[in-house]
Amino acid sequence: MAASEPTDAPRRPRGRPRKPLGDANERSATRERLIRIGLEVLSETGWDATGLARVLKEAKVPKGSFYHYFSSKDDFGLAVVAAYEAYFAERLARSFGNTALSLPEQLATFIDAGRRGLIKHAFPRGCIVGNLGQELGGVNPVFRTALAGVFERWEAALADALAQAQACEALADDVDPQAAARFFWMGWEGAVLRAKLAASVQPVDEFEAGYFRYLNLPAPEVSPGELPPSARSN
Amino acid sequence: MAASEPTDAPRRPRGRPRKPLGDANERSATRERLIRIGLEVLSETGWDATGLARVLKEAKVPKGSFYHYFSSKDDFGLAVVAAYEAYFAERLARSFGNTALSLPEQLATFIDAGRRGLIKHAFPRGCIVGNLGQELGGVNPVFRTALAGVFERWEAALADALAQAQACEALADDVDPQAAARFFWMGWEGAVLRAKLAASVQPVDEFEAGYFRYLNLPAPEVSPGELPPSARSN
Repeated sequence: MAASEPTDAPRRPRGRPRKPLGDANERSATRERLIRIGLEVLSETGWDATGLARVLKEAKVPKGSFYHYFSSKDDFGLAVVAAYEAYFAERLARSFGNTALSLPEQLATFIDAGRRGLIKHAFPRGCIVGNLGQELGGVNPVFRTALAGVFERWEAALADALAQAQACEALADDVDPQAAARFFWMGWEGAVLRAKLAASVQPVDEFEAGYFRYLNLPAPEVSPGELPPSARSN
Repeated sequence: MAASEPTDAPRRPRGRPRKPLGDANERSATRERLIRIGLEVLSETGWDATGLARVLKEAKVPKGSFYHYFSSKDDFGLAVVAAYEAYFAERLARSFGNTALSLPEQLATFIDAGRRGLIKHAFPRGCIVGNLGQELGGVNPVFRTALAGVFERWEAALADALAQAQACEALADDVDPQAAARFFWMGWEGAVLRAKLAASVQPVDEFEAGYFRYLNLPAPEVSPGELPPSARSN
């Protein structure tokens, strides 16, 4: 559990009642601000490297009032994970949840959004759920359960799309939608990791081609004109 | 670069000549001990969470003599990565490098060793290269280059095995060995991450089945008798 000890979290004041720090609206707005900044910081660095001090400073929140907004550093981290999932839900709705698209189009839409995200942020950012899973999955049971739950819901979204494609005979019967959805997310996390290391979207392109091969579907054309050439080389 | 600052590294003493700390053999033995303990600690926690103090304490090395063995915390981390790659080279030689095995047997041998490793360590450990890549790949160029190099060498080992299978007509001609090798490692890193989160080898089983499907090879039989039932459920 060492990795979840709030080593850099401010000390909770003892034996004193909490001072009121503004009304409920203000508290809620500050909490949201801390979560938003936490999302940025956590997508670049690890959990233990995330100086809460840096988050509080950027949010202009005095160090002593952290526990007014969150009960612990873990509580803050879980709120950031929930916010990431909420942001990600829109992206899933636009791809796997969009029944106006064919399955290949759904997959290409999801993958392309990831490709653009990596380029936009010049690659240092990755998937918060993947990052935290690697760092804390083995050592922090609270995060392990939360992160496994996020992956299960992401898998369910894709499994539904795969099952629907199967119902329309747009996907072979011998594909197990659940297994195929899990296979997708394993590879996707690996592709994002490799794209970060290579500072290139090529691993994402290769994952896309591989996953289409796995499903036995023709791979979609990548539209190279829409990506800067620098993103296609090392 | 913030993530690579040696925040918990001991301060290098200034303006004083280093005291001799034993002969070259002793120095080398202590260095090896620090690397071995670093391997254990780093496979459980993140880089920034890896208190060098903990490593030094377990190695019974006084804090002040760290720079006798390594020039920086990064230098130590890179030595740990190199040691991990050396350990891993044996596993690759026994699987993808073993020409007495068929391609499906080579893949199954490699994957099974990973499965056993996860069970033996009751899942908290993962792949050091994957862990460090997630945490530092985006922010630390020195680690990024080193880790990308490790993945490239691992890919080359599998790409060779795939090309040899193709030469023996044991693998379809339309598989690109390089691309298929990269697709393997992306999925493998994801499978190990998910196994950690699920505390189960099921993601590894599913990755194996998926990769065989991708290669259009019949999946090998998993020998369930050799794994404890607890490892097959959540």
